[in-house]
Amino acid sequence: MSKLLIVGTLAFDAIETPFGKTDKILGGAATFIGLAASQFDIDSAIVSVVGDDFPQEYFDILTEQQIDISAVEVVEGGKTFFWSGRYHNDLNSRDTLVTELNTLADFNPVVPDNFKDADVVMLGNLHPNIQMSVIQQMSQKPKLVVLDTMNFWMDNTLPELLEVIRHVDVITINDEEARQLTNEYSLVKAAEKVHALGPKYVVIKKGEHGALLFHNGNIFFAPALPLEEVFDPTGAGDTFAGGFVGYLTESKNISFDNLKNAVIHGSNLASFCVERFGTERMLALDGHEIGRRLQQFKELTQFDIELQ
Amino acid sequence: MSKLLIVGTLAFDAIETPFGKTDKILGGAATFIGLAASQFDIDSAIVSVVGDDFPQEYFDILTEQQIDISAVEVVEGGKTFFWSGRYHNDLNSRDTLVTELNTLADFNPVVPDNFKDADVVMLGNLHPNIQMSVIQQMSQKPKLVVLDTMNFWMDNTLPELLEVIRHVDVITINDEEARQLTNEYSLVKAAEKVHALGPKYVVIKKGEHGALLFHNGNIFFAPALPLEEVFDPTGAGDTFAGGFVGYLTESKNISFDNLKNAVIHGSNLASFCVERFGTERMLALDGHEIGRRLQQFKELTQFDIELQ
Repeated sequence: MSKLLIVGTLAFDAIETPFGKTDKILGGAATFIGLAASQFDIDSAIVSVVGDDFPQEYFDILTEQQIDISAVEVVEGGKTFFWSGRYHNDLNSRDTLVTELNTLADFNPVVPDNFKDADVVMLGNLHPNIQMSVIQQMSQKPKLVVLDTMNFWMDNTLPELLEVIRHVDVITINDEEARQLTNEYSLVKAAEKVHALGPKYVVIKKGEHGALLFHNGNIFFAPALPLEEVFDPTGAGDTFAGGFVGYLTESKNISFDNLKNAVIHGSNLASFCVERFGTERMLALDGHEIGRRLQQFKELTQFDIELQ
Repeated sequence: MSKLLIVGTLAFDAIETPFGKTDKILGGAATFIGLAASQFDIDSAIVSVVGDDFPQEYFDILTEQQIDISAVEVVEGGKTFFWSGRYHNDLNSRDTLVTELNTLADFNPVVPDNFKDADVVMLGNLHPNIQMSVIQQMSQKPKLVVLDTMNFWMDNTLPELLEVIRHVDVITINDEEARQLTNEYSLVKAAEKVHALGPKYVVIKKGEHGALLFHNGNIFFAPALPLEEVFDPTGAGDTFAGGFVGYLTESKNISFDNLKNAVIHGSNLASFCVERFGTERMLALDGHEIGRRLQQFKELTQFDIELQ
């Protein structure tokens, strides 16, 4: 089986939406990426760090999905990264209430020997120096390196971020971040400028408005599935990324046409993630409903105009 | 050939965008609808009203596209409807600077005898009583009646608007209007409530984020084509509607599958409209570039995941 290496946060999240609030629950980029990727027939491992307050049951959730967590560092006496946020009524924007880096502040990732030859590397949203360190530890060039990042690193560590962007094949950012990074309002122009920074493929996430994949002047668009209820958007972007890399790791095909399929698989899994708080929906998924919803995606976008 | 009857405004527009401004130029819903629909092999006629300040050259523009304007009333001594607006930097929002109804204030539409049996009727954005009057003048039930409207009529003439909504097959409104009309944030739920008001088909326009078609619990989504430059969004919604009804009039097929194609044709033509001020781009269109861009739409959305 092909191998997927995931670096990213394991976290406690406390979330408020118009529909309710949670105490500290399992969250973090690596969690959502790992759970989404585990829907595919691959070997995956997470590189991350937590404090000794991270409960065994959360580790169990990950290992039950066959995710290798032996490279997760547990800092004795340390506390796990904590994020708390409150979503506005339209769920499209949110305020961050608390960010406690805790053990993440001094994190030095160590890639385990058996994943130094991973086929695909997913660099979840983290300090770009941590992401770069993971790339440097690989014993052979991965088939595909995918980077997720956010405006915080553009504001505070732009040179380091540009260095890691130069070393990846795919970058996933949202529309506002693409505009910030390039000073271009048009996403077509923004994507061209991001290409010029290094990545062959640029994925621009637009939340409820879908996602765009850019490559060599070609564009593919995947809508978000229109849903009756969106309950909690937390983790949707990471779930998208997890579905994207999970599918590509399994299918071992990094052509543009297959990346289109990967965007659809990512969008499909993200559509489940938002239906419940945190990881709840992702842990209750079965293959049949995933297949049925892929069919819905196909019906949502496929049309039959004959062209000469 | 099948017949399309269009009711809507012929207008003077004065437009400011971040890229420049215009004097009074040709505008109006019926103008954009008519120009888009004229790309199809149909007989079309416009019912509208202007003052005697409306120049012959604007009439010539319409007749050169084979649009029958014999039912456009010219009010001696009257002035043509005038709208002026200024777009914000992102082109997604605008301020209306001037609205002068002029001859439109007392408009009584008269459907010409040779279009009382039109196959398709397009009710452009106007007072709902005017739209209703057109429906009542038809000598036989059209195959399809399509209504466009806006929040202004929801605010000021809701009972009259609900009456005309009850009599149409398709309604096209934007996302905010769908939410206002139904008090539902989810567009899926909003569409269900609009269905219950009468229309079998509900089209929700999301501007640069595309358009959704709802029918009987089924959903189809057409993206807007990502463009390098959007110059002037004026008329994009009407151009969408014109492409939608023009295609359906020509193809004489009002199945859900064919309405999907109509949404694509409408989106395709709207993607040209926004590339220049006013009607400029629509008047310089040729069939080859329309076909090439339809191909781009196909490449933008079609994928190849095999499903069981």
